[in-house]
Amino acid sequence: MSDPVLIGIDWGSSSFRAFLVDARGAVLARIATRDGVLAVPPGGFDATLVRLLGAWFEAHPRLPVLASGMVGSRQGWHEVAYFLCPVSPRALAGALLPVLSSSGRIVNLVPGLCARDRRGLPDVLRGEEVQVIGALDEFPNARLLCLPGTHSKWVRIRAGIIESFTTFMTGELFAVLKDHSILGRLAVEAAEDEAAFSRGAEIGLAAEPERGGTLRRLFFARSLALADELAPEAVASFLSGLLVGCEIREATGIVGAEDEVVLVGEPELCRRWERVLVLAGRSCAIASSEAAARGQLRLARLAGLLGKGSA
Amino acid sequence: MSDPVLIGIDWGSSSFRAFLVDARGAVLARIATRDGVLAVPPGGFDATLVRLLGAWFEAHPRLPVLASGMVGSRQGWHEVAYFLCPVSPRALAGALLPVLSSSGRIVNLVPGLCARDRRGLPDVLRGEEVQVIGALDEFPNARLLCLPGTHSKWVRIRAGIIESFTTFMTGELFAVLKDHSILGRLAVEAAEDEAAFSRGAEIGLAAEPERGGTLRRLFFARSLALADELAPEAVASFLSGLLVGCEIREATGIVGAEDEVVLVGEPELCRRWERVLVLAGRSCAIASSEAAARGQLRLARLAGLLGKGSA
Repeated sequence: MSDPVLIGIDWGSSSFRAFLVDARGAVLARIATRDGVLAVPPGGFDATLVRLLGAWFEAHPRLPVLASGMVGSRQGWHEVAYFLCPVSPRALAGALLPVLSSSGRIVNLVPGLCARDRRGLPDVLRGEEVQVIGALDEFPNARLLCLPGTHSKWVRIRAGIIESFTTFMTGELFAVLKDHSILGRLAVEAAEDEAAFSRGAEIGLAAEPERGGTLRRLFFARSLALADELAPEAVASFLSGLLVGCEIREATGIVGAEDEVVLVGEPELCRRWERVLVLAGRSCAIASSEAAARGQLRLARLAGLLGKGSA
Repeated sequence: MSDPVLIGIDWGSSSFRAFLVDARGAVLARIATRDGVLAVPPGGFDATLVRLLGAWFEAHPRLPVLASGMVGSRQGWHEVAYFLCPVSPRALAGALLPVLSSSGRIVNLVPGLCARDRRGLPDVLRGEEVQVIGALDEFPNARLLCLPGTHSKWVRIRAGIIESFTTFMTGELFAVLKDHSILGRLAVEAAEDEAAFSRGAEIGLAAEPERGGTLRRLFFARSLALADELAPEAVASFLSGLLVGCEIREATGIVGAEDEVVLVGEPELCRRWERVLVLAGRSCAIASSEAAARGQLRLARLAGLLGKGSA
């Protein structure tokens, strides 16, 4: 077994994940808890970190520590300003914020990213930047990445530089509609219905403007059910496919349909998005699910944090 | 004061409203309670009706009774099948379902409407059909109506016939996002902010596909707040304007931008939509807020339910 060279932390709103990473980006050990940023009491980040990682700190006294995600937000440990795109991995590595923990360890916080569209409207991400950099390590020629999820991110790359990105509220919209809207009222919990997912995806994808946009198409989850053309057990799968289809249709309007889409994230989510991309006739690839650890390693290396032997 | 000729009932999911209507469609008296269809116990519609309207039934023993809305749905008193568009007011009047109440009164249930797009996908409404017919009584040359609300309806008219319609989940999406999503978490309750409403509306309206659709634009309510370019007190107003703007942009893709939009509904809602239509450069008019009573009167007259003296 290889030696670890980095302790990487992905500290998001609702979860805490840490990795022991070797020099090739492989994850040798991992810790995952529900101690997300929103669950940490004010002023409690240092103590939470020492409680969760104290054993690793003792066992690996010389390893550098990198932390990404909401831990660098205003609600986190220390705010790290968003870095404005376009940005290279090297420039981002130069903007890490070192924070001294009571354990004596320096924790290097990774900034989130901001992108502005032509009208100057901002978009933001925090935590996904390390996944993007990890995926670029694996797919150095990628021009378009998609990170599916609660707030899906589509990221444009040019010559290895993060040029811009766009957020879609796909996963969150699915959750609030299923749990709190009239669409959920007709739904009955059931196993995933692949046919209903694909049917929803095709309706979400269809490009003609005379079919309306997302605000209009959502209602098909209700009208089809009321017309007895969608079973209550299939409503959730249909809505899920519809929303992913809407995301891909909207994203295509922004970034075009030419580039291969590299999917980055949890394997199950990536496969779900892949199915809809294939329905849309798009070529795609799925990045390693360890993209976050790989990206943290690359940032640490670019920042000169790794010992000579491991860099 | 004129004499009533009809008892009209608008019995929706969450509210019960009844009107005493004169021969010109004016409302002489009204009752409004929270006894919506969802609040009535199974088998309890007849008893609820007699409890709420018993005094009117006694005072006006010969008046016909018409009821529209979810009372005619599967969850209501008796299911009345959706009538497939295109439909004339006269044809709809011929499809009323008479139901005998224990009070001895016949209650005529109005069918909802179904419309199919070119691909055969259904859309449905129930209750709005009487508002549409009432507005057409006031605007006989209207070609396009908009009924703003929880589920906004855009209705195409040709020569006084309801040709088709489209639903947008605008109001419901606003409510679930404000109360249950991360967008609401940054919001602080405050009085309406007109500038933020207009700013959101302009972002929702902008037509370029490279700005993405509704699923993408929703996130501006968060990214602008995180970038300190939208105050927490303004987030809800911004989101409201954004969603109305998105509705009008999507509807324009379906029905075009030429026709005057006749707004039908609660005056405050209509004024809110009017502001965004004006921003979009559209001409519009607002129908009488008594469109429902007026439409019920017209249906009752076409159905031959009114006495000779009042017809």
